[in-house]
This record gives sequence, structure tokens and C-alpha cells, in this order.
Amino acid sequence: MSFAKLDELGRKLEALEHALAILGADEATHMAVGGGEKRAEAMAALAGMHHARATAPEIADWIEAAENEALDEEQQVALREFRRHYTNLTCLPVEFVERQTTTRLRCEQLWRDLRAKNDWSGFLPALEGVVALVREEAAMRAEVLHLDPYDALMEQFDPGHRAADITPVFAELKAFLRGFVPQALAVQEERLAKTPLRPLSGTYPVERQRELGLAMMAAVGFDLTRGSLSVSHHPFCGGVPTDVRITTRYRTTEFLSALMGVLHETGHAMYEQNLPQKWAHWPLGKARGMAMHESQSLFVEKQLGRNPAFWDWALPLVEQHLGEKWSKADILPHVHHVARGLIRVDADEVTYPLHVILRYELEQELVAGRLSVSDLPEAWDAKMRDTLGLSTIDTPQDGPMQDVHWPSGAFGYFPSYTLGAMMAAQQWAAIIRLNPGIDGDIAKGRFDMVTDWRHDNIWSLASSRSTPEIMKLATGETLNARYFTGHLTQRYGA
Amino acid sequence: MSFAKLDELGRKLEALEHALAILGADEATHMAVGGGEKRAEAMAALAGMHHARATAPEIADWIEAAENEALDEEQQVALREFRRHYTNLTCLPVEFVERQTTTRLRCEQLWRDLRAKNDWSGFLPALEGVVALVREEAAMRAEVLHLDPYDALMEQFDPGHRAADITPVFAELKAFLRGFVPQALAVQEERLAKTPLRPLSGTYPVERQRELGLAMMAAVGFDLTRGSLSVSHHPFCGGVPTDVRITTRYRTTEFLSALMGVLHETGHAMYEQNLPQKWAHWPLGKARGMAMHESQSLFVEKQLGRNPAFWDWALPLVEQHLGEKWSKADILPHVHHVARGLIRVDADEVTYPLHVILRYELEQELVAGRLSVSDLPEAWDAKMRDTLGLSTIDTPQDGPMQDVHWPSGAFGYFPSYTLGAMMAAQQWAAIIRLNPGIDGDIAKGRFDMVTDWRHDNIWSLASSRSTPEIMKLATGETLNARYFTGHLTQRYGA
Ligand SMILES: [Zn+2]
Ligand SMILES: [Zn+2]
Repeated sequence: MSFAKLDELGRKLEALEHALAILGADEATHMAVGGGEKRAEAMAALAGMHHARATAPEIADWIEAAENEALDEEQQVALREFRRHYTNLTCLPVEFVERQTTTRLRCEQLWRDLRAKNDWSGFLPALEGVVALVREEAAMRAEVLHLDPYDALMEQFDPGHRAADITPVFAELKAFLRGFVPQALAVQEERLAKTPLRPLSGTYPVERQRELGLAMMAAVGFDLTRGSLSVSHHPFCGGVPTDVRITTRYRTTEFLSALMGVLHETGHAMYEQNLPQKWAHWPLGKARGMAMHESQSLFVEKQLGRNPAFWDWALPLVEQHLGEKWSKADILPHVHHVARGLIRVDADEVTYPLHVILRYELEQELVAGRLSVSDLPEAWDAKMRDTLGLSTIDTPQDGPMQDVHWPSGAFGYFPSYTLGAMMAAQQWAAIIRLNPGIDGDIAKGRFDMVTDWRHDNIWSLASSRSTPEIMKLATGETLNARYFTGHLTQRYGA
Repeated sequence: MSFAKLDELGRKLEALEHALAILGADEATHMAVGGGEKRAEAMAALAGMHHARATAPEIADWIEAAENEALDEEQQVALREFRRHYTNLTCLPVEFVERQTTTRLRCEQLWRDLRAKNDWSGFLPALEGVVALVREEAAMRAEVLHLDPYDALMEQFDPGHRAADITPVFAELKAFLRGFVPQALAVQEERLAKTPLRPLSGTYPVERQRELGLAMMAAVGFDLTRGSLSVSHHPFCGGVPTDVRITTRYRTTEFLSALMGVLHETGHAMYEQNLPQKWAHWPLGKARGMAMHESQSLFVEKQLGRNPAFWDWALPLVEQHLGEKWSKADILPHVHHVARGLIRVDADEVTYPLHVILRYELEQELVAGRLSVSDLPEAWDAKMRDTLGLSTIDTPQDGPMQDVHWPSGAFGYFPSYTLGAMMAAQQWAAIIRLNPGIDGDIAKGRFDMVTDWRHDNIWSLASSRSTPEIMKLATGETLNARYFTGHLTQRYGA
């Protein structure tokens, strides 16, 4: 039976993915510094074995044959995802993939060096090389998938989302933020004029912050028997669903950024921990995509962790672990701090979407060939001045050299961040409709109702439906900017 | 070119071995408790991929063809080890290996349960099954390798050692210990009667013990940029040569056992760290075998770490880290404590060989079919009473159910422990011949001369020669009990 062959293949691929995931997390947390070269060699070889197995020509025959087998409904859905994965993995010629891998790696290495030096002109030819190949890639994917080129790129990260649907939603959001950012800043300024900020500037030992983080993870629903918290230079969520590795980094002068980071990664981790175990070795059992994943992390970080009610429950916990008493009036100005800035990863939830929409607009132009890479600094600067009133014309390191995504060839990824933020707000609104008193639960540290809803409506579906379908089923409608703008208005508008 | 194919195969196998080694170390140190089932699945699948690649039939052709290629000397030696590995891996039929794996796993699981219950009769049929297959295995290996059956088993763990050579050496050692154990105990009793033991019973925080361990590791020559120290239930040395993972476990009431464990694993680790990197992906580049490996750990633990001169240097370090001042007269009675006991892993260096020789004698009889498994408790008890004056007749859990080796089918492994101890003493004697004042170096914490000798004579050879050949080259003669008995006499006899 051909489906059985796919099932068996899935187990082999899962083992290699397990190794790659744990080796990757280990590299960032526990590996000896001198182990990097051999680790890179080993991971490249394992990734090669995975690719060779996952793209073997006979798999096409198995899929073909399995489609004529008597499969139950679950197997049929699994088969559809096997096909989708196989198509996405095999739609580029091997020769092209190798050329692209080399070009991207070289550009990424150059970026690490030249970003620090603010050297755009040295970087430009490398990025042009990457963009040229991305255009080729998008064309090839588009032809196989019968999608527009940019949609074909997004499809790798976030199946089912189309620019035609996203663009109007982003446009509405951008129009809203154009007016709302100044308003939120004015509200903040007025409040701070009345009540000056109490600085977060005690001494917070790492071990205590870690214990606080673990206590919050457990309370929110992270299963500590199937995951752990470590330290790494860049926070991430890695590992495997039965052993999710999240990390943060600590500063001893301030506890909020590490804690918010932990909550964010906890959101990612809970999605992984709660995917259906019986599907774990099928593509069907994987998380649906980057936007959905980010909706889960932002749900915990923003909808729960920055909800004022959350702090009714959290402040005594902070006091218990860090020995410092904060009032909500003290902490919320930090939790809800808004600022115009140049750097996406440092942005708050009000300004963040403007950073993303800028990249979304520019990368569509780049992929379509309507914008040349050499014109990027001006185009970036114009959009930054237009939306946030800031210029990057003299600091391309904070402009088109800011992120690793483009040098590494990840075009079509950026929208996921803001789609995730909007989806999280829409999910939260659905929960409130079902349980208008949910803030009372949160204030008591009771997250079960929220967890149950996310389990039933998001996690348990894994990749059985597309992201828009999951949103429609879960919230009653497809993506709608109103919930996110409503959320911002409520939190930052008064 | 066929040698190039073997070289390329070596890189693939190295990547899988890298994954298995890191996943294995991670499992014992950092894995979430709930991650065990999936980890076992993943590792079994990866081991299966490794086995399938390493035993592919075309490899036989490559080896055959490579033997007619123009190879340099290094490649010729590498090829010989490729052949040795391939032969050892493929000399059993797949059907047999599968049957054996199942039988061993079941016996090992049963052992974990029944050992605690002291239930020999429940365990007996399972061990009989394992021994029956070991006899078959030994016969098959013997035929392919043109060796005696027991030698063919040892050959997997320790290439080049033959029972015909070991038996007289072990006999000499046993005869010596029969008289020496009572003498060493009498000497100890007399000394303790004069100067009572100062107990090691302070409070030693884990973090301080860890720092002390790291300081000693570094001083002895462990490269902390290519390895690390963690905690696990059973101390081990794992990982890969560029990232060696050693572990220990701590008790806060006593620091010596953890510290000695760290020194032991440091010895294993330094062997791995200093294997020739250019050979890392060939069988030639692996450590020579279990006896040689154990000689390296015991060299650091016993020849260095239990050398009185070592404590001239170590005691100020202990004081610096643990805040407690010890004199050599205080610490050495702990470091050199001798006791008759039932348990091999708890034994001191004087009595340990008797535990090993007992097992060596019994397992030869078992493999040869001259001893039946059902007669093991009596045979074990007779030997224990004969050599150590202790009986295990009512406690088979401390007799033939004591170790995991037999239930897991590892016959031919036990001699490595005592071969290692003897080889370490013989290596130390060779160093003293070159540098009679070496104790003066050790007392100052200078280990370079020792490290350089071990590097040039042991580590850099990797698997380029057999264990007896390496010993001959390094020390001028093959295995000779005299160095070990001399070492014991000097340390425990007066
Ligand atoms: Zn995230
Ligand atoms: Zn050892």
C-alpha cells in the first residue's frame, strides 16, 4: 500500500527533523564554542539526507497511487499535505537550489560583516544576486502552484494567504496607524506628564528571573515535562513537540524584556506541544504556518501578557520572585510603552505593523521587478518618513540592511508577523464573545478557558486546513483588521 | 576512485554519529522528561539509517577496488580499518541481528525490574536466551575473523587483545591480589588505628564543586572550548571530539566522589579531544578501543588524581573553591581507601581487578558452553568467596545480576576495565623512566610533559595500530602485570 510507504517515509523524516531540531537548539544553548564547525558539517549532511529522502522521485508515484487507495478521511487530508509538501520541495531544479543556497549563504555572511559597517554599496551586489534568484524562484513556483509569483513565495511560509486578500487589510491598518500612532504617543505623553515613569532599575538576579519565567510559563499552560527554558543570545522556540526548547536572555538591571520574551516563546511552544501527537510524523501534523505560529506567540505575549488584567495576577508573582512590589500603575506604562523607532524587533505592538507593511510593500515590488535593489535605500527612507517620520537615508544598516530575511532569501515571510498580530486580536475577540468575563479569569491566573479554546480551534487542527479556513472556523470570519485596530484603540487610545 | 567513495561515506556516517552522540548526551542532561519516547524513536531510526549505510553491499566492492588503487600510506591504513569495521558490522546475518536486538532489549528491561527484586529465577530464562545467541554470535564472528570465539567477541571492543595473552597476565594479577588485598587492608587498619579518619562531611554547594571540577579539568588539559561539564544520573563521557560532553553527579555532603568522577571522565574526554582531526570521519580516526579508552580515564583518575603529589597542588585549589583546608594526611586516607565489597563500580583500584577477573573467567566459560547460566549464582559465589571472602549466594542482585553488560549482550567487554588499569600503570612507568622527577611537576600542577607523552604515544595514533602494538611502541613492551602490581605495592603496601 502506497500510503503505508508515505507513512514510513514520514517516520524517517521525523527522525532527521528531530535530530536537526535538537542539534540546532543545542548549538545555541549548550554547544562548546569550538564545536561549531563540525556541528555545521553534521547538520548540513543531515539536512542533505533529509532533502534527498523527502524529494525522492518514487514519492511522486506513491502519492499518485495512494490517491487511488481506499483511505479514511484523515488519511486523505494527510495525503493532501504530503502532496503539498512534496510539490513545494521539488518544484525547483536541484541545480538551481544549489546555486541559490551558495548565493544566499554568501550574502548572509557578507551582511553580518557589512551591516555593522553600514556599508550598503559593498552589500548591494550580493543582495542583487539574491533578488535575481528570488525572482526566478518565484516564477518557477508560480508556474507549478498556479499562483501569482509573490503568493507562491508566501505559500512556503503560510499556506493559503494571498496578497490579494492581505493588501486591502494591510492598507486599512496602515491608514489607521497613520492617525493612531500620533494619538497614542500624545496620550502617553499626557499621562507621563501627570505621573512620571517609575524606572525598572533594580537588580534582578538571573536565577530569580528564570524562576519567575518558569512560574509564568507553567501558569499559562506550558508543559514543563515536555519542554525547557534556557539562555541563548537570540531568544527562540526550537526543539520538538515532546521537548520544546525555549530560550531568553537576561539583563540584571531590568526584568520585563526577558519576561515578555519568555511569554512570547511560550506561545510558540504551546502550539508545538499541543499539536496532535498521532499525526506528528506527517506533514499534516505540523503547525499550520508562520502567521498562525506568530498568532500563538503574540496571543500569549500581547493579548494575555500585556493585558492589564494579567498584571493583577502577575504582580504578586513578580514580588514573590524578585522581592519588589509594583503597582499596576507603575508597571503598565512599561508594558504599554509606545515609541517611534527605526528597528522592527525593538518596536511595540502599535508601531510594529508599519515596519512590516513597509517591507511587505517593498518586497512585492522587488519580486515583481518594479523596484531595483539599488533603489531600496531611497524607497525605504521614503516609507519610513511617510509613516513614522524617521529617516534611514544615512543609515542603511537600519534600513534595507536591518534584517537577515532578505540576505537569506526569505521573501514572503515578513507579512506573517503582522498577520499573526491581527489573527491573535481576532482570536481574543472570539474568546471574549464566548466569555465576556474572561478578564476576571485572567486576573486570577486562570487560563484554562483560553487554553481550551486555542486547543480546540487552533492547535488540534494542525495543518488540516489552510490558515484562512482555520480563522474562519475559529472566529466566524476571515482576516479582519477591525479586531486589531479595536484592540489598539482600547489599549492605547484613551 | 573507490577510496573517495569510502571517504564520502565516512562523512555521512560521521554526521549520523554526531547526531546520535549529541542526542544521547542531551537525553541524559538536558532533555525534558516527557521527550524520552520520541527521542528513543528518533535515535532508533537514525541508528537504523547509520547501519543501513554502513553495511551497504556496494561498500564491499569499494573496499575491494580501493585495495588496487594507488593509495598513500595513510590511506592504506585507513582502508584496513574501513575493512575491519565493515567486516565486524556485516559478519552477522540481518535476521540474526534483529532477533538478538529484541532478545537483548527484553532481557535488559527485565533486568532493570528484577534486579531490584533480587529475582534470579524470573530473570534466568531471559539471560539464557541472550547467552544462547551470544554463543551463536561468537561462532559466526570466529569463523569470519579466524579467531577463537571469545576473542572474536573481544575484537569488537578491543581490537588485537587475545585471551591467550590476557589470561596469564590476569592469572598473575589474581595471584598477587590474593595476598595483597589482606596486606593492604592490614596496613590501612594499622594507620587508621593511629590516626582516625577526618570525615569529609562539610556542606559543599554544587556550584562550588562544579567550579572546582572545571578548574581541575582545565589544569589537567581538558579543552574547555571543545567540551563541557554537566550533571547526569550516571557519569559519562559522550558527545563528539570537538564538543565532548562529560557529566558527574554531586552530593553536597562530600566532594571527593564527584571530583574523582570528573577526573576519570576528563581522561576519556582528552583522548577524544586529541584524536587526529583530519581522520575524524574515518574508522582510523576513532579511539582504538575500550581498554585503551579506559587506560586514558584511569591514567587521569588513578595515576594522576590519586597520586599523593597531585594533592600538593590540588589541596590549595580545593580550599580556594570550597573554603575548607585539608592536609594531605587528612585527604589521602580517603583517596586511597580500600575495602572488600560486592559491587564492582564501588570498588577501589586494589580490589576492582578481582571483580573483573571473576567476570572474565565466567564469561569465557559461558561463551564456550562449559558453564550453564543456571549454574552462575553458585559459580559467582564460589569465586567471590575465594578471592574477596564474600558471599552472594543469597543476593544474586549483587552477583550475576549486578551489571547491565550481560543482559545487554556485551560479552568480552569486562576485561577492558582491568586491561585499562594495567595499561595506565604501564604508561605511567614509561613516563617516569623518561622523567624521574615527574612527581615534582605534578605537585606544581604542571601536566604538560604527561600530556605531550600521551599525545605523541597514544592519542595521535588513533586506530592506526592495534592496542598491543600501541603499548609496545609507547612503553617498549606488551602488557605486563608488573607495572600495575608495582603501582599497588608502592601506593598501598607500606
Ligand atoms: Zn515569534
Ligand atoms: Zn571509564
